[in-house]
Amino acid sequence: MLKVPEHQVAGHLAIDGKLGPLVDDSGRFYKPLQGDGRGNKELAFYESFSSDTRVPDHIRKYFPVCYGSQLLEASNGSGLLHHLVLQDIASSHRNPSIMDVKIGSRTWYPEASDNYIQKCLEKDRRTTTVSLGFRIAGLQLYEGKESGYWRPGRKEVQSFTVYNVRSILRRFVSSNSSIGNENSDCSFAPSIYGGSAGILEQLLELKAWFEDQTIYHFHSCSLLILFDKESVSKGSTPVPEIKLIDFAHVVEGKGVIDHNFLGGLCSLIKFVSEVLSDSKESSIKDCVESEKSGICTDNGNCQ
Amino acid sequence: MLKVPEHQVAGHLAIDGKLGPLVDDSGRFYKPLQGDGRGNKELAFYESFSSDTRVPDHIRKYFPVCYGSQLLEASNGSGLLHHLVLQDIASSHRNPSIMDVKIGSRTWYPEASDNYIQKCLEKDRRTTTVSLGFRIAGLQLYEGKESGYWRPGRKEVQSFTVYNVRSILRRFVSSNSSIGNENSDCSFAPSIYGGSAGILEQLLELKAWFEDQTIYHFHSCSLLILFDKESVSKGSTPVPEIKLIDFAHVVEGKGVIDHNFLGGLCSLIKFVSEVLSDSKESSIKDCVESEKSGICTDNGNCQ
Repeated sequence: MLKVPEHQVAGHLAIDGKLGPLVDDSGRFYKPLQGDGRGNKELAFYESFSSDTRVPDHIRKYFPVCYGSQLLEASNGSGLLHHLVLQDIASSHRNPSIMDVKIGSRTWYPEASDNYIQKCLEKDRRTTTVSLGFRIAGLQLYEGKESGYWRPGRKEVQSFTVYNVRSILRRFVSSNSSIGNENSDCSFAPSIYGGSAGILEQLLELKAWFEDQTIYHFHSCSLLILFDKESVSKGSTPVPEIKLIDFAHVVEGKGVIDHNFLGGLCSLIKFVSEVLSDSKESSIKDCVESEKSGICTDNGNCQ
Repeated sequence: MLKVPEHQVAGHLAIDGKLGPLVDDSGRFYKPLQGDGRGNKELAFYESFSSDTRVPDHIRKYFPVCYGSQLLEASNGSGLLHHLVLQDIASSHRNPSIMDVKIGSRTWYPEASDNYIQKCLEKDRRTTTVSLGFRIAGLQLYEGKESGYWRPGRKEVQSFTVYNVRSILRRFVSSNSSIGNENSDCSFAPSIYGGSAGILEQLLELKAWFEDQTIYHFHSCSLLILFDKESVSKGSTPVPEIKLIDFAHVVEGKGVIDHNFLGGLCSLIKFVSEVLSDSKESSIKDCVESEKSGICTDNGNCQ
């Protein structure tokens, strides 16, 4: 039984009779192959990537599993259409908070047409892509059983400034994200961004690979960052996850590192590590203050 | 007594009645302040940089010393003009081989005018700037007492391809650079690119700073790489040197890392480390072969 993905935060949605991806209950994600050649390019990437022995195992885990392609009824009712069959990343999370971060200070590639380059460049300049080396392309924050998800609309996302990005990276790991931007407590930062299995360590592992790999250049590709806020709130071990997605514009590296992706990744790493170190500082401050007053804070970060 | 610099490999030259920098015998370099505001921006950068306590000492050594500005007779005979007074980097080398590498996959900055951006973008796409994240903007290779320097003309430099860049990075550290591109022996790679005071270590030290610093964004800035081939040939300790130059387009970092410079720097690091590891491999091969034949190569790299 195919249905519209519940947790898709960016890209074309399969609603209102439009063409978009579908999911099933067994954890698979069906992405329609777009007719302009992009779909076939993405399929070709997955085929090349899965058989490339130069990609180390510890890097493969950052990519969705691909199960080939399959003919399916398209979501827009246009009949049978080839779909890329991928792992449904969100399916392993109960109430996932998700950020889709498009990496790189340019989304175009040298071989593209002038028209395509100008179109991308305009959007790159309008968003934080040029200034930050990445832009948030979509997100949802789980705020709790009652309020559900905060999922800003496409226009709002596209107008995010540097200030907004910084604030969202804080809200993303805050227990009080629904109250407002200014007072985000970042109380989940140590367990989601920090720690040996946290987002920062995963980003650093990816960075080390990007400093060396010259096989692919990942243009206009996104990092999906996911975690389950409820499991963190309940004290169970969180499993923050990173996956690279959207490979329709990947080109051969030809012996050159992907300096565009790497630069943006380093910029994101700096932002995430700043949220983390701010949260550590404020939890030390909390400790000092609670020691003075004789009470202990209950966020468990007072070491 | 002011004169035209002997070792200037890029930028405007003070010849044929044109405006350009001058040097004296005491090791100072006089750069005319251009009237379009660039000169004043560069002076302002040096003033801000020299008094900024956030810049660590081990990073300052990668920047030329600035002695302020001075009114001097311009090289084009137009009368008195303000000049930036800088350390003449080449003056401490007897027969310097020099590469001027403009770092970054874009030379423009978000705040610039549309016209300026299009002009830069066009040149960035025409050269290796977009593809490699850096371009060689000028160079001279010392080839020996008889042949003197190889210094390709501006047009030749601007037409360098990825292949040319790779080949020049090899020729730069070869004892047989004059023979031709294909057979570069890279025999100086271990002592110039390698070692604890070599170019690679210096680039890595700079990289670590760029992963963290959010004070400046260095647009259209160059890395000057210098060494004295004669002193290496004679067996004395070489002092390969790196200096950042050209700060007319530096803008405030505003809390964001310079991902454009960092990405290009990482790409250059990859190229340099490949020349170095190739040269190590071939010297091991030499060793094995000379052991077989009972003779030892004399390049001193046979460990």
